[in-house]
Amino acid sequence: MTGSPLPMVVPDGGLPTRVRIHEVGPRDGLQNEKATVPTEVKAEFVRRLADAGLTTIEATSFVHPKWVPQLADAEQLYPRVADLPVALPVLVPNERGLDRALALGADRVAVFASASESFARANLNRSMDEALAMFEPVVTRGKAAGVHVRGYLSMCFGDPWEGEVPIPQVVHVCRVLLDMGCDELSLGDTIGVGTAGHVSALLTALTEAGVPVSALGVHFHDTYGQALANTLTALRHGVTTVDASAGGLGGCPYARSATGNLATEDLVWMLRGLGVDTGVDLGRLTATSVWMAGQLGRPSPSRTVRALSHQES
Amino acid sequence: MTGSPLPMVVPDGGLPTRVRIHEVGPRDGLQNEKATVPTEVKAEFVRRLADAGLTTIEATSFVHPKWVPQLADAEQLYPRVADLPVALPVLVPNERGLDRALALGADRVAVFASASESFARANLNRSMDEALAMFEPVVTRGKAAGVHVRGYLSMCFGDPWEGEVPIPQVVHVCRVLLDMGCDELSLGDTIGVGTAGHVSALLTALTEAGVPVSALGVHFHDTYGQALANTLTALRHGVTTVDASAGGLGGCPYARSATGNLATEDLVWMLRGLGVDTGVDLGRLTATSVWMAGQLGRPSPSRTVRALSHQES
Repeated sequence: MTGSPLPMVVPDGGLPTRVRIHEVGPRDGLQNEKATVPTEVKAEFVRRLADAGLTTIEATSFVHPKWVPQLADAEQLYPRVADLPVALPVLVPNERGLDRALALGADRVAVFASASESFARANLNRSMDEALAMFEPVVTRGKAAGVHVRGYLSMCFGDPWEGEVPIPQVVHVCRVLLDMGCDELSLGDTIGVGTAGHVSALLTALTEAGVPVSALGVHFHDTYGQALANTLTALRHGVTTVDASAGGLGGCPYARSATGNLATEDLVWMLRGLGVDTGVDLGRLTATSVWMAGQLGRPSPSRTVRALSHQES
Repeated sequence: MTGSPLPMVVPDGGLPTRVRIHEVGPRDGLQNEKATVPTEVKAEFVRRLADAGLTTIEATSFVHPKWVPQLADAEQLYPRVADLPVALPVLVPNERGLDRALALGADRVAVFASASESFARANLNRSMDEALAMFEPVVTRGKAAGVHVRGYLSMCFGDPWEGEVPIPQVVHVCRVLLDMGCDELSLGDTIGVGTAGHVSALLTALTEAGVPVSALGVHFHDTYGQALANTLTALRHGVTTVDASAGGLGGCPYARSATGNLATEDLVWMLRGLGVDTGVDLGRLTATSVWMAGQLGRPSPSRTVRALSHQES
């Protein structure tokens, strides 16, 4: 069989000309792995992603090792990749994490908040606003240190406890995080339940509330297969920052409450077909995910990775 | 864990209020199975799909058993399901197949054409127009017998030989099939390479050529994960007939040139979230696909089926 392994390029109206992919594989993808991935393999993963053209790669998390032992090597990993000519944001759950990241020279950090009242109650025994207030010193000190601060907002489209999360509640949390000083927000569909109309309604409500779309990224999970349709909808609303995970890495893609990140390759396939520039070399990226799947000992859940890596079968 | 296994309903603008799902699982889904599925299991599959609310179920193919031995029991299967209160189209590759279908009282048939010149050359050693002419007596005799005729048009977005299939060529083939008397066309992305802009461009070109969108269905494959985003795009162009396969049944979803049908459950999840009526009970449909996966001895590739059937894991 012959033929091109790339889609025909046919632009569509109303879409941005360029999208910045916020690659979360090394952090969000690996944090739920049962096996401990060696630090050097993680560093090689980040290097290969950069070599494939990704310009923003979330490298690790400065969370307490007790909570996420898979990323306990953040201090060892970060210096190994810090010289790469790409943005390398790191997750910092609290001031202690911020201190650790700043001590290593990190210039981009991210905090992880939730739009769900039930999440705050169940996990922190606080109200949502009380939980959000916990992030204020992290954001304030991060901004004072001159670093770029991203705010993750999980459970924007539903949560495992209350089910539906009201749109005005999500808008409120976005405003609080931006008012704290966050440079960018990532709207997360953590349990993957959202559909395209919900995405439209949330982005419309945020725009009407004065939130600039340039400050918004989207983070969809493919739990119910909706991630790419939702992403396309967000692009039609002017969003130009899209989170994705190389090879679709991230927890169990089939458990309702777990992850199942949008695969970067599936996203790149769509954007390339639409003529939207990402700077990513799909062949190199796919090869990276195939290599990483070998390290993890199981196939990638990305449809594009599977199709391209079995193309002669 | 608690919470609803259904998406929050948030309609979006510019979409139809109702979509008719053309369920292809029993025919397109099973025709590539290595194992022979017993006729009674196939009949039960069709019955369960009807019970889940699907109103159009492509039951089988009256193709020569030498070519598709998996469907060699068409004469035995059709009478077992013919009394169901749903539309039961059957594939007829030629006049002999039409004769067999008409003899059993079938009132809906489908022919399977291709938009690819190379396909005609490679498979039939004819030009595309010569290949299309072969269908004329089937369509003409079908219409004369008073049956509804669907024309499948494969390779609309690319083929494994020539790669890109020009849009004007697809428009030409559509016009030829409609002029023959086809009541409905199904635009197939057989190798799954198409992206949303390509879908927009083809549907725009067809509309401009005078093809009524009401005569068009779409048939996307999820080989590169694009099927649902492409379907959403088609809905925005007014398409209201969407082909899908329960549980994503159909060949190897990961081989480039093979199938990987859009899973009906993933489609229903999106449409339900968008407030688009399909009449399908997602729980019953998922249970049917779980049952069928058990018959076939391997898990469904549908993300929604996996998420819902492992919801307590």
